[in-house]
Amino acid sequence: MTPKNPTTAPTLFDLEAPVAKKTKRTTGAKATKKAGTTRKKPAAKAKPATGTRRRTSAETMASRQREISVSEFFTKNRHLLGFDSPLKALLTAVKEAVDNSLDACEEAGVLPEISVEIEQTGESRYKMSVEDNGPGIVEEQVGKVFGKLLYGSKFHKLSQSRGQQGIGITAAGMYGQLTTGKPIRILSKTGKRRDTHEFLLTIDTARNRPDIHDTKIAKWEKDHGTRVEIEMEARYQKGLRSVDMYLKQTAIANPHLTLHYTDPAGEKVTYERNTKELPPETIEIKPHPHGVELGVLIAMLKETKSRSLSGFLKEEFSRVGTKVVKDVIATAGKGLSEKSYPSRIAREEASALHAAIQKTKISAPSTDCIAPIGDDLILKGLKKEIEADFYYASSRPPAVYRGNPFQIEVGIAYGKPGGVGLEVTDEGRIRKKKNSAEVTEDLVSAADEPIRVLRFANRVPLLHQQSACSINKGVVQTNWRQYGLQHPRGALPIGPMAVLVHIASVWVPFTSESKEAIASYPEILKEIRLALQECGRKLGTYIRKGKRLKREFEKRSYIEKYIPHIGIALQEILDLSDGQRDDTVETLEDVLHKSRKF
Amino acid sequence: MTPKNPTTAPTLFDLEAPVAKKTKRTTGAKATKKAGTTRKKPAAKAKPATGTRRRTSAETMASRQREISVSEFFTKNRHLLGFDSPLKALLTAVKEAVDNSLDACEEAGVLPEISVEIEQTGESRYKMSVEDNGPGIVEEQVGKVFGKLLYGSKFHKLSQSRGQQGIGITAAGMYGQLTTGKPIRILSKTGKRRDTHEFLLTIDTARNRPDIHDTKIAKWEKDHGTRVEIEMEARYQKGLRSVDMYLKQTAIANPHLTLHYTDPAGEKVTYERNTKELPPETIEIKPHPHGVELGVLIAMLKETKSRSLSGFLKEEFSRVGTKVVKDVIATAGKGLSEKSYPSRIAREEASALHAAIQKTKISAPSTDCIAPIGDDLILKGLKKEIEADFYYASSRPPAVYRGNPFQIEVGIAYGKPGGVGLEVTDEGRIRKKKNSAEVTEDLVSAADEPIRVLRFANRVPLLHQQSACSINKGVVQTNWRQYGLQHPRGALPIGPMAVLVHIASVWVPFTSESKEAIASYPEILKEIRLALQECGRKLGTYIRKGKRLKREFEKRSYIEKYIPHIGIALQEILDLSDGQRDDTVETLEDVLHKSRKF
Repeated sequence: MTPKNPTTAPTLFDLEAPVAKKTKRTTGAKATKKAGTTRKKPAAKAKPATGTRRRTSAETMASRQREISVSEFFTKNRHLLGFDSPLKALLTAVKEAVDNSLDACEEAGVLPEISVEIEQTGESRYKMSVEDNGPGIVEEQVGKVFGKLLYGSKFHKLSQSRGQQGIGITAAGMYGQLTTGKPIRILSKTGKRRDTHEFLLTIDTARNRPDIHDTKIAKWEKDHGTRVEIEMEARYQKGLRSVDMYLKQTAIANPHLTLHYTDPAGEKVTYERNTKELPPETIEIKPHPHGVELGVLIAMLKETKSRSLSGFLKEEFSRVGTKVVKDVIATAGKGLSEKSYPSRIAREEASALHAAIQKTKISAPSTDCIAPIGDDLILKGLKKEIEADFYYASSRPPAVYRGNPFQIEVGIAYGKPGGVGLEVTDEGRIRKKKNSAEVTEDLVSAADEPIRVLRFANRVPLLHQQSACSINKGVVQTNWRQYGLQHPRGALPIGPMAVLVHIASVWVPFTSESKEAIASYPEILKEIRLALQECGRKLGTYIRKGKRLKREFEKRSYIEKYIPHIGIALQEILDLSDGQRDDTVETLEDVLHKSRKF
Repeated sequence: MTPKNPTTAPTLFDLEAPVAKKTKRTTGAKATKKAGTTRKKPAAKAKPATGTRRRTSAETMASRQREISVSEFFTKNRHLLGFDSPLKALLTAVKEAVDNSLDACEEAGVLPEISVEIEQTGESRYKMSVEDNGPGIVEEQVGKVFGKLLYGSKFHKLSQSRGQQGIGITAAGMYGQLTTGKPIRILSKTGKRRDTHEFLLTIDTARNRPDIHDTKIAKWEKDHGTRVEIEMEARYQKGLRSVDMYLKQTAIANPHLTLHYTDPAGEKVTYERNTKELPPETIEIKPHPHGVELGVLIAMLKETKSRSLSGFLKEEFSRVGTKVVKDVIATAGKGLSEKSYPSRIAREEASALHAAIQKTKISAPSTDCIAPIGDDLILKGLKKEIEADFYYASSRPPAVYRGNPFQIEVGIAYGKPGGVGLEVTDEGRIRKKKNSAEVTEDLVSAADEPIRVLRFANRVPLLHQQSACSINKGVVQTNWRQYGLQHPRGALPIGPMAVLVHIASVWVPFTSESKEAIASYPEILKEIRLALQECGRKLGTYIRKGKRLKREFEKRSYIEKYIPHIGIALQEILDLSDGQRDDTVETLEDVLHKSRKF
């Protein structure tokens, strides 16, 4: 395909035709209209552009160069933040507020109790209120937390949390302000004997900073907590991608949460917590040497307070001990020693050091920085949510991408396929399960829909952009045919199944700032596939067993049908009494079930 | 699904079981291992978390709150910028540099001549050099243009350009620096008698500003231009998503460009320009009133220099004349008049004004801000690229999303299906087309692959994230079955076809900063579908005609087979000479072709 001619140029358009023809729009020549197209001609004032006429000089261009405020950038690109449609906007705003509340409560060691309320305030306007019993926010920080993009406490540390970017809640407020002109209202109280501060603020997008309209001391019966209210142009709707579904799935993944929800119709729901234990406190970790890029290493060498290379390696990284230091420095060569002064290490030496780190065996990152949900709770969640015949959960050991530890957990629920709903009793009899009376062949062949994929990242349900997500890719790339499911190429498998996948990580790589899908780093995709395969194998065994059970059940039913007739025949031949005949029939049935092994 | 019970709480986990069981990771109780899973137990040092113990106070949290530099943000999230894999990184870097060169040349009115060179510098390292004959960059701006994210001239104006965010080339440099530690090298010359400035710079990511290492006057034979060199960790590979393919498609969409390319093997290719006319200079426009959100309107009212509402509306917006002003103000009410002083208009009045604008009929935005490729050039490009039997191009009239004008152009190339490759001559004969001798039935049934979609935004080819792109969605959502193609539900249609879709807009809404896919705004999706339908109808006619032609061709061949025998029979019966017989046969054949209408 690629032209190889070095000089005469393989032109892509062989245009020997008059130039005017190609540039009719430019020269204002009459355009030959195509039937059916109604394209307007350009306004005649568009001047003809000749090849060499200077339109703008470097100086003029320079005068137009300007800094772009990050808030302006995201206002213009609000779809990057999940605010592209009124329906999605409401979900995104609630999600950001609830995620923040959960993070704050867990960090403070408070059992979270969160109230979410959605109220319709106009034809296409809703007000969202999210209130928590978290630690509150100190007065001086409120403005920045809610009124400045890229501001937060979670970005600079490596530990598992829901928020990580310092964008979410400010973006929600910005969207509210953009569509209704109204400020965010915030209540915050940091302790029993402290004041409740009320704030009304907007975001100064040109300067990316809060614009505080009003602040006063309010009355609030809470001991401590935060309340956020944002009014916005929105649409409310129930369904798979609704606020309701998000809250329900949040309760699944956060069993320590008590959640009150009032929907726009005034309906109230409470999801009570099921445990009084918070998830384990996750430890903040130092970066793992294998995940550090050369550029980052150079920057770290420059900024470290360590006064020796050996100290630097041990203090700034995790999993580096005396032996690793020795190995790395020996491999690096270039005159580097344990005593080399970090900030004097030049690029070439740093490059050798970087290469040496990659070559040295270093133990995997510590994993107490990750708090998975756990097989147990995943199974319970699935059983509660999805009526099925077979459940299984599987966790992978923690792994690493770009130096960031992460862990994949998978649960599956498979239900009501042909022949399943049968079980073998202790006596070797095959019988219908009690709870699967409704299993019919019809239901099975009706199960011709793609399976359902439930995605979670750091306990947050992901409801949008499924096809762009590595979780979805992992499911699609797994060969489900070998586990007994239909599986069209390049699509989700077909069958009565739900798959739940949770990624817990100190840094979840989302595909956009709206945090809706996970980027396909190869390490992550691999772990997802491995966990799915583990579940798939168990599923395959179950499905095959179900099929065998069904065949055996049919055979035995067939034989059983004739046993009474044999009984009657024997009664006649051997002149048995009715009691003897019944005993014989029973014996024959017993023999049938004992002799036909399953 | 949604629990409705207001008080007793529909618990999602009915956990009456001992709490220890659910929190085994926390309490350190022995985990019951699942067969086949090898999850490590958490390190014992994770302290048990009790429900109420305070881990961190609001004050401690406040002390951790920090500003996040936009460069740090994108370094950590480099997949957002298209630098998630070494293969993609090389393409993204070349793309950003070439896009900038094209924008600069067009803005300056210079016919672009661009050289791209990729050189392997290490096992997994490549150096990319892109050189143009553009206007150059004034010395003082070089640092910021290449060393500061969110800095540029294209963000704040509404006019069609390739770059728009002020991120791209700096991000490429940042990636190079991150993976190799090496600075970007830049040459710039703004005029014949001016100096060539050479810069070596890196990006100070913590502060988002350039760090200029070295600058000197260099020798350069060019009159004016810019050259960028970035070395990075990368992988080079030919194929559908390669640098080669990007450059080839760029040449298709930019026929005024001469492009020299040297690949890592030293192979040189030149794509000569086919026209000496630049695309029409696109006009910078003012926002259209219908696309302005309330929040933006309020900010504009605050910042305008106009001293009356009527002046404000006329000066700050496009398409607003005296009549529109009168209508809007009358509809708004709230005591607003033409003389109202803009910055004194309160939120409530602004809100009424906003609603009034939405209700008032205002002519569509002017369209000279958009420079489409044109049906003509699209057809020529397709014909050059793709060997097919049928080509068609269709443009939609300009439309608007969120106040931003855009225009959709579509071209299709359909090739070598069953029965096509036939044509009707002037005499009504059906014969094989000259250039489709190789058409066989085999080829047709082999065409069971999904069609190929070529995506362009402001003349830039998009090679990644196809499934997330609204262009792809538009193709999938169009019902191709009615036009004679196979079309599996929710997937691309099947057939020997390529579809090219170009969106030209003053602001292309990309789904991420890497500009790989277009967000699915309903207005855009609708225009894409309408343009595709227009092409589809023509395609349908063609395919049906092809099928009819084929049937007719078979029928006639069948009849023709017997005509000589009829001739012989007639010769015998009527005692004709050989000449008369041949004349009769010829007449019969003529009659056949004339009587059987097609």
